[in-house]
Amino acid sequence: MECMNRFSIDVRVYWEDTDAQGVVYYANYFRFMERARSEWLRARGVSQTALLSEQGLMFAVVDTALKFFLPARFDDVLDISAQLAELRGARFRFDQEIRRGGPGGELLCQGHCQAACLDATTYRPRRLPQGLLGDNA
Amino acid sequence: MECMNRFSIDVRVYWEDTDAQGVVYYANYFRFMERARSEWLRARGVSQTALLSEQGLMFAVVDTALKFFLPARFDDVLDISAQLAELRGARFRFDQEIRRGGPGGELLCQGHCQAACLDATTYRPRRLPQGLLGDNA
Amino acid sequence: MECMNRFSIDVRVYWEDTDAQGVVYYANYFRFMERARSEWLRARGVSQTALLSEQGLMFAVVDTALKFFLPARFDDVLDISAQLAELRGARFRFDQEIRRGGPGGELLCQGHCQAACLDATTYRPRRLPQGLLGDNA
Amino acid sequence: MECMNRFSIDVRVYWEDTDAQGVVYYANYFRFMERARSEWLRARGVSQTALLSEQGLMFAVVDTALKFFLPARFDDVLDISAQLAELRGARFRFDQEIRRGGPGGELLCQGHCQAACLDATTYRPRRLPQGLLGDNA
Repeated sequence: MECMNRFSIDVRVYWEDTDAQGVVYYANYFRFMERARSEWLRARGVSQTALLSEQGLMFAVVDTALKFFLPARFDDVLDISAQLAELRGARFRFDQEIRRGGPGGELLCQGHCQAACLDATTYRPRRLPQGLLGDNA
Repeated sequence: MECMNRFSIDVRVYWEDTDAQGVVYYANYFRFMERARSEWLRARGVSQTALLSEQGLMFAVVDTALKFFLPARFDDVLDISAQLAELRGARFRFDQEIRRGGPGGELLCQGHCQAACLDATTYRPRRLPQGLLGDNA
Repeated sequence: MECMNRFSIDVRVYWEDTDAQGVVYYANYFRFMERARSEWLRARGVSQTALLSEQGLMFAVVDTALKFFLPARFDDVLDISAQLAELRGARFRFDQEIRRGGPGGELLCQGHCQAACLDATTYRPRRLPQGLLGDNA
Repeated sequence: MECMNRFSIDVRVYWEDTDAQGVVYYANYFRFMERARSEWLRARGVSQTALLSEQGLMFAVVDTALKFFLPARFDDVLDISAQLAELRGARFRFDQEIRRGGPGGELLCQGHCQAACLDATTYRPRRLPQGLLGDNA
């Protein structure tokens, strides 16, 4: 079931996230999405710091997109989801949603992010270490 | 000719734009893209401040996407383009590129941004004032 | 006792917070400090949103300073404190510390922030509503 | 004369710099100040990139402070100054001002930033290479 794979984090909106239009500045949703992906990795036991220092691997965003339906505002608590949708060789793709108030709240934004695993020295794609993202991945 | 419509600005990369992977943080390219769109409007004689105070109109991003080919680094000078690709009713779409060094430099990122003109009070779409984006738009 | 007044929040360091020197970018500590002050207000039952909409009041930073002893890095969990040090008329001052790992962790930064309560229309100083910051304030 | 040493850059305020109070978010003035310091170095012929790769040296902020007199707003052009006020061993201090419109414009903020030259491997202070900041420094 979809809900079994759903992973999300809470993000509080602070002044730093908003702009003079009174809402969250559009680029800042991408910051929130990255926090969710980093926490998704941490929940799977993946330390990006150790991955870099011990295996010389890092992740880079290859493409991302986001549709905006409703704005978030100062003081809102947002639910930022990250769901692994595809995993092939060095690349993996997350589908991501931003909802106000919690997992069942109003849908504010919907998008995706495709990332690649790179050799941190050569910046060339490297297949993800087996089992890194879990069996269900 | 394509170059007739091409509009771009120079953006210098500072420490604030980079992250601990040594390159520009992915969300920050969206900040650069917005600077280019704001300058495109200014070059057409559109003051977003006046548009809001005098006509009660503002722009909101509806969707955006970006593909990342090569990373930018501290001290780079980037060429950020904004080309009006479509204009229908309340919506308009920019195609945007990020190149290192100038208009003919290496292509780092490529994407688009669709925005809508909104009534600043009701947040409902409002047709763009006629002639606002020029005859060629 | 000092510890009775100590208030702090946890902040996780993400890629967005770091720069190409491999550490947290200096201006971002000020973002963290503001999160702690906003949460301090919330813990006292003060909603900045309601204060603005119901009483037409807002807070503005008047001066701030920070000394940097040790850098924070990606993945660190930081303890950001906010302690009300002075309250006079429209102005109040927080002493703030940033420590790695928790309240007893290594001291990374130490500083203060003085803020003023303003009328949101005239931007003139306004005495804080009585009791707003609690009896101990 | 003071003006002989005065160095400043222009910074345009974009949406990314503002917050929902309608003005520039306080931490972002520190980003602007750093841009001015980086350009001050560039104007003296100092490449931070080369300094790191060729001499293993980098700069770190040791302490900074800022007083806020008037807010900047979207679309403002700000004049951000950086004046070398002191240079001793590994440390140097800039006095910095932010004015609206140009060098003679309204004073919005005033502060300073003290930085240290560090060995990029050991993070220990290292005396600045002789002549790096020029004779007048």
